[in-house]
Amino acid sequence: MGGLAFRLLLLPFLAPVATTAVNPALRALASLNLQIFPTFQPEEANNYSIYYFDQKIDHFGFYNTKTFKQRYLISDKYWKTYDGVILFYTGNEGDITWFSNHTGFMWDVAEKLKALLVFAEHRYYGESLPFGDDSFKDSKHLNFLTSEQALADFAELIRHLKRTVPGADGQPVIAIGGSYGGVLAAWFRMKYPHLVVGALAASAPIWQFEELTPCGVFMKIVTEDFKKGGTKCSESILRSWGAINRLSNTGKSIENIISNLNSEDIQRLKDWLSETWVNLAMVNYPYPANFLKPLPSWPVKEVCQYLTNPYMSDSLLVQNIYQALNVYYNYSGQTRCNNISETTIGNLGSRVWGYQTCTEIILPFCTNGVDDMFEARSWDLDKYSDDCYKQWGVRPRPSWVTTLYGGKDIRSHSNIIFSNGDLDPWSGGGVTEDLSDTLVAVNIPDGAHHLDLRPSTETDPPSLQLARSVELRHMKQWVSDFYGNYRKQP
Amino acid sequence: MGGLAFRLLLLPFLAPVATTAVNPALRALASLNLQIFPTFQPEEANNYSIYYFDQKIDHFGFYNTKTFKQRYLISDKYWKTYDGVILFYTGNEGDITWFSNHTGFMWDVAEKLKALLVFAEHRYYGESLPFGDDSFKDSKHLNFLTSEQALADFAELIRHLKRTVPGADGQPVIAIGGSYGGVLAAWFRMKYPHLVVGALAASAPIWQFEELTPCGVFMKIVTEDFKKGGTKCSESILRSWGAINRLSNTGKSIENIISNLNSEDIQRLKDWLSETWVNLAMVNYPYPANFLKPLPSWPVKEVCQYLTNPYMSDSLLVQNIYQALNVYYNYSGQTRCNNISETTIGNLGSRVWGYQTCTEIILPFCTNGVDDMFEARSWDLDKYSDDCYKQWGVRPRPSWVTTLYGGKDIRSHSNIIFSNGDLDPWSGGGVTEDLSDTLVAVNIPDGAHHLDLRPSTETDPPSLQLARSVELRHMKQWVSDFYGNYRKQP
Repeated sequence: MGGLAFRLLLLPFLAPVATTAVNPALRALASLNLQIFPTFQPEEANNYSIYYFDQKIDHFGFYNTKTFKQRYLISDKYWKTYDGVILFYTGNEGDITWFSNHTGFMWDVAEKLKALLVFAEHRYYGESLPFGDDSFKDSKHLNFLTSEQALADFAELIRHLKRTVPGADGQPVIAIGGSYGGVLAAWFRMKYPHLVVGALAASAPIWQFEELTPCGVFMKIVTEDFKKGGTKCSESILRSWGAINRLSNTGKSIENIISNLNSEDIQRLKDWLSETWVNLAMVNYPYPANFLKPLPSWPVKEVCQYLTNPYMSDSLLVQNIYQALNVYYNYSGQTRCNNISETTIGNLGSRVWGYQTCTEIILPFCTNGVDDMFEARSWDLDKYSDDCYKQWGVRPRPSWVTTLYGGKDIRSHSNIIFSNGDLDPWSGGGVTEDLSDTLVAVNIPDGAHHLDLRPSTETDPPSLQLARSVELRHMKQWVSDFYGNYRKQP
Repeated sequence: MGGLAFRLLLLPFLAPVATTAVNPALRALASLNLQIFPTFQPEEANNYSIYYFDQKIDHFGFYNTKTFKQRYLISDKYWKTYDGVILFYTGNEGDITWFSNHTGFMWDVAEKLKALLVFAEHRYYGESLPFGDDSFKDSKHLNFLTSEQALADFAELIRHLKRTVPGADGQPVIAIGGSYGGVLAAWFRMKYPHLVVGALAASAPIWQFEELTPCGVFMKIVTEDFKKGGTKCSESILRSWGAINRLSNTGKSIENIISNLNSEDIQRLKDWLSETWVNLAMVNYPYPANFLKPLPSWPVKEVCQYLTNPYMSDSLLVQNIYQALNVYYNYSGQTRCNNISETTIGNLGSRVWGYQTCTEIILPFCTNGVDDMFEARSWDLDKYSDDCYKQWGVRPRPSWVTTLYGGKDIRSHSNIIFSNGDLDPWSGGGVTEDLSDTLVAVNIPDGAHHLDLRPSTETDPPSLQLARSVELRHMKQWVSDFYGNYRKQP
């Protein structure tokens, strides 16, 4: 099995973010996207102020005393210092302005909660670079890129805001994040419960680590999405791998898809295809959206229209795959040529997320071609580790996240909402059943990857509306509990 | 005010430990001590096996991949793999064998709880030196001496034991510690609740940081102990400072106490005296003991016999102080000369604790000479910081501990017993009222510094016996809750 493939499989986790992080076209695309949703006006969404806070590069040692500027955004339009709340977005792997524009939920609930909105950028992303241009230079400079340091940044920032923003001191804070940012929101509540009264962890695969979840679950869910997408759709994709292999063995060239590819290229092509199916499952939203790419509503169904017959000739099957791909890669009709080194809008910035997936964020994936529609691949940690060492000069510590954050034994914590979309492959590693009265699961049957964090639209399915109202109810409860206790104090 | 004085004032916190850490005379003295308590046989106490576990020097980064050997002790004499428990001593600033011998409580309850005893050494103390002889060389080598790294060591060690010791995997773990070790036990439960079902934090001043407790409380309690110790006792000590000042100004020499001292020496003398009074308050045990020094029962009362008249001449008052001091420094009758550079058995090892008090463990102290029996001194962080920089090349971050561990906002945690002796000056920065049903305070009216962790004796006051039975009851509850939940799981 190819190490590269598994590297690519990790991309979905970061794709919404890292790829756009340093892409100058980002803001243009983001605002294009915003126009799709009439209730979420860009001029409102962008009504934030940008600030910078001096953070210690190393929170966990006293030898390195240097600091860097962490960027954060603030919107106080709906904030009330009496009975209000601070909604704190725990930034993940990308430019924080992009998250701010793509987390319409926070803007939507700001008025209801009289909330101050804060979006904190994750170190080593966007403008928050500990060593400036040298930040990604080598493993020495990357040493301070960990979730612990990022959480400590959030903690210091919250204390800073409470000290310096008039009215903030007596207010509760709620952590909110999606995907890796959702993982951070949950971990933040677990490790710093004195700083946040609760967390909304949207599509947070906190159990995608070590052996907490069988490694095949992720791709099984992707497969199920395609099964639902259309008759024989997943079977067509399953059969396509053999077709590609046979075509490449015969040296035949398929126009637009396979031409002059050596065996390594063929593997990369298949990885690129796999990742594309994964991405489609993740952004299988009920309305036209532009999260990873501009797409129609229910894009998997759209794709599956081209994949109804697995039993045609290899050439025709691969031609159909190509047609299907165009839904994802050329929905706008502007793309002339597919670049198999990328699956989302650009792919700069993925570099440093790759470091995180080679150190702490070790997500085991595997396929068997029986329960899923992919070629069989086992999870090979040794190989993975060697690849990491080659690329970054570091080796993963796959059990550390479980040691530090508790794996499945998190029942002693409280006030975390774990929301998941059933269609989202990441839900397999998420918390989808209540763990206690205050560790609650919100499942969205028609939801893909953190759909609930997106701005509300008039075409939102009822399950999504219900999910958001449950989330809001919990947040209101945390706030009122806080003020109840707070005012009781002498 | 003198920076040195405040350095010295910090010693009590570490004195029971650090001073004896690298002292070869330690074991001899410790076993001498054990013989005082008939119920605590040295041959039983020492019935442990010594192990070493490879720990990462840096748990929070991936650049430094080196490891060091952490020492830990195990006793399985009373352990039962069915319904048993693992009592895990969160080692503090000293040699772990010394803690093992001075924490008779754990040995006493082992049979009742069918417990496996584990004593884990704190990094940079005893034999657990990350860089061997170079460990204390400079701030670069000391960089990995933090409470976070120590807690991570404990976490990794527990996971290691669960993986490798047959029968350990399905057992609950309880963290136990005293003084700084008690602080670590509490913090460990807060940060790693998935690894320990509860913590017994004995005499743990978790609120002696920042402005959580008024800086004068500590010395006020010391003073109250001396007020209780005898009529006019604290007044005599309060008056003694002026007497010493006047005598030193006149150039008069007082035999055995003041001779040929310059003004700096006089300050050091007064610091040494202050620290001696503090230590006496800490070890004001109801029976003869040898914790910091071999002492009679209720040593403060013993000392106060010499300090009943504050209004005699300066010379006579200072002579009486000298007599009083002999209770502490020469109870054995073997000491010829007092060395004012030390207040406990030796003072090696205090060096590296000094680093901790110059980085994370910033404990503000002050006196005013009105509410306490000491010369007035304010808490001057800037001066403190400059002194730290001079000595260690690092500056303190006094708010970090509060940011990280929550200060007073710890109500969301559970299953921690905070025990304190009312006579112990450290109780002022401790938790002495229940915070919730499961964050409970156990106060021992006749108790000094973590008296409850010492071996039981036939002369234990009823309040101490009650405290230990309450502690045992809570621990049994945690264990039965664990098995109740554990066996319910599929």
